[in-house]
Amino acid sequence: MAHAWPDNRFTALVGCAHPIVQAPMAGAVGPAMAQAVIAAGGLGSLPCGMITPEKALADAATVGGGPLNMNFFCHSLPEDSDPTAWRAMLAAYDADYAPDYSAPPPPVRAPFGEAMCAVVEQVRPAAVSFHFGLPDERLVGRVRASGAKVIGNATSVAEAVWLAERGCDAIIAQGLEAGGHAGWFLPAHPAARLGIFALIPQVADAVQVPVIAAGGIGDARGIAAAMMLGASAVQMGTAYLHSPESLISAAHRKALASEAARRTVATNLFTGGNARAIPNRLIDDLGPVNGAVPAYPDGAAVIAPLRRAAEAKGDPAFTPLWSGQSAPLCRSMPAAELTRTLAGEALALLNGDAR
Amino acid sequence: MAHAWPDNRFTALVGCAHPIVQAPMAGAVGPAMAQAVIAAGGLGSLPCGMITPEKALADAATVGGGPLNMNFFCHSLPEDSDPTAWRAMLAAYDADYAPDYSAPPPPVRAPFGEAMCAVVEQVRPAAVSFHFGLPDERLVGRVRASGAKVIGNATSVAEAVWLAERGCDAIIAQGLEAGGHAGWFLPAHPAARLGIFALIPQVADAVQVPVIAAGGIGDARGIAAAMMLGASAVQMGTAYLHSPESLISAAHRKALASEAARRTVATNLFTGGNARAIPNRLIDDLGPVNGAVPAYPDGAAVIAPLRRAAEAKGDPAFTPLWSGQSAPLCRSMPAAELTRTLAGEALALLNGDAR
Repeated sequence: MAHAWPDNRFTALVGCAHPIVQAPMAGAVGPAMAQAVIAAGGLGSLPCGMITPEKALADAATVGGGPLNMNFFCHSLPEDSDPTAWRAMLAAYDADYAPDYSAPPPPVRAPFGEAMCAVVEQVRPAAVSFHFGLPDERLVGRVRASGAKVIGNATSVAEAVWLAERGCDAIIAQGLEAGGHAGWFLPAHPAARLGIFALIPQVADAVQVPVIAAGGIGDARGIAAAMMLGASAVQMGTAYLHSPESLISAAHRKALASEAARRTVATNLFTGGNARAIPNRLIDDLGPVNGAVPAYPDGAAVIAPLRRAAEAKGDPAFTPLWSGQSAPLCRSMPAAELTRTLAGEALALLNGDAR
Repeated sequence: MAHAWPDNRFTALVGCAHPIVQAPMAGAVGPAMAQAVIAAGGLGSLPCGMITPEKALADAATVGGGPLNMNFFCHSLPEDSDPTAWRAMLAAYDADYAPDYSAPPPPVRAPFGEAMCAVVEQVRPAAVSFHFGLPDERLVGRVRASGAKVIGNATSVAEAVWLAERGCDAIIAQGLEAGGHAGWFLPAHPAARLGIFALIPQVADAVQVPVIAAGGIGDARGIAAAMMLGASAVQMGTAYLHSPESLISAAHRKALASEAARRTVATNLFTGGNARAIPNRLIDDLGPVNGAVPAYPDGAAVIAPLRRAAEAKGDPAFTPLWSGQSAPLCRSMPAAELTRTLAGEALALLNGDAR
């Protein structure tokens, strides 16, 4: 590579060549994608929020040759969520889809705890990123002692400052453009969420550690722009969803390439959490946000039978078609080739080659 | 200036030195600000959506020495808006503020028509920008025949394509971060609005004419980033609201510098239109969006007596404290100095001087 990145604070921190983090998209990313990104000089990520510690350990063991990021959730489990009203609303679809309510529920999204911390201590990844805040101080200390850099996720300046005060080594500035779940954890009005364009420089001004921009970055123009705004790296999800390594369904892949991907919405219908998705039948029928859905993550279990029944027919009517606002900018390309291409194009833009 | 801008398509189109458009903020901008921006090499704008043709003509006559942009609204007036429910809700505040309901209502925001078109033909500005779509084809033709470049405002790719098909010479890509009124005019779900980071490259890919990025751009980092994303220019509003030339109240100026400016929301409470503002008492009490508010622009007349009564006490409880998401990034500086400073800093960033 003829050019150098204008900011090497993040690449030096975790030891990768390019300031590109492949987003840990739970359910859509396995070790093959992480390995491909690492091989191309980016930071590959393994999403561990929806798998068992055994699976996380086994997956991580297959990845090597460069820095790995392991990602975990740190939500609090709701104590008193009541699924009754939401079940009743979804019953309107039973005649069409005949869901099997006796099937076992999907595994609950579990917050990071002792067992996963032991996995981190065994794997010793270069980085560990947390979504929805941080685990307790003792667990963070053990992660740090394992040698991993600790990365937090902020959707506001207040969250970024909170994470920096607790010793995070780098902070993701997640704009509202991001696909999947918004990682917010401090009280805030959803209407006040920031676009990444305003968020990056405000976070960069508020904290001393490197900032990783996330949300709405689909191509090299976005990487170059994020660095102009003060980011030291980017985290890209939707771009990698398009790659052959992504584990999404054919219906999800088709939706990403459809006109509907131009009008993603923040919805709570699939899990109870605020997450960006491409509109499908459920969102079109009920609107993107409904007060009857039990709090995250309990909403996921309620819709599971209906989702399974529809998916068995290849119908994504109740499937969360996660996507950021960048879908129309993305190209379908193997993850390693995508990483190298994005890096080369962004370096050219940042160095004025394309002018 | 030692450096050249990487893209001169917009500056060449309207004849200014810097690709910086001062946003035409109705009620906050008079000819002094437009003149200062023009003198510094930017495109100064006169907002004409809330003034009479006589005032527009008189204001324009005081501005010279470079390219001027005149801005107009193209909304349809609602035919059957019913203020009853909204009046009833606002009555809860009557005891506190004792509004005078017999005072004459404020002038209605009028869409661009014959009289204003005649003003354009007399003033012959370098550019005319329209908000909320375009006027009818015949009026657009007369504006173009006067010599003015026609600028449309898009909040989506679909709107950008619509404007390009109707011959606009440049298109503003307005992200949801923008302060004041969103210029949308084609049917769309408010939840599907795009952040500017994802919007700029998608619009740049969809149209051939120069793109002007608007929303969330508060400093030189934003200018450089917008150009990386494919914009040929930027339109900045909140940055100029902070300048001494801005006509906003002391209370508005104070709000822009407050912590509340970090959590602006899109609200319909002040006019019926979707517009971004700093939360005040009314928003805190009712939430940012209420279905009882009559359609734009009729909502403005309903709240006017209460607003006037509160403002007479210096209380902005019912005043629209318009602001984009960039307020915390902005510096208070005279408009000419701000324009020159932003241009110099952005050029340095784009040319790697600051690295």
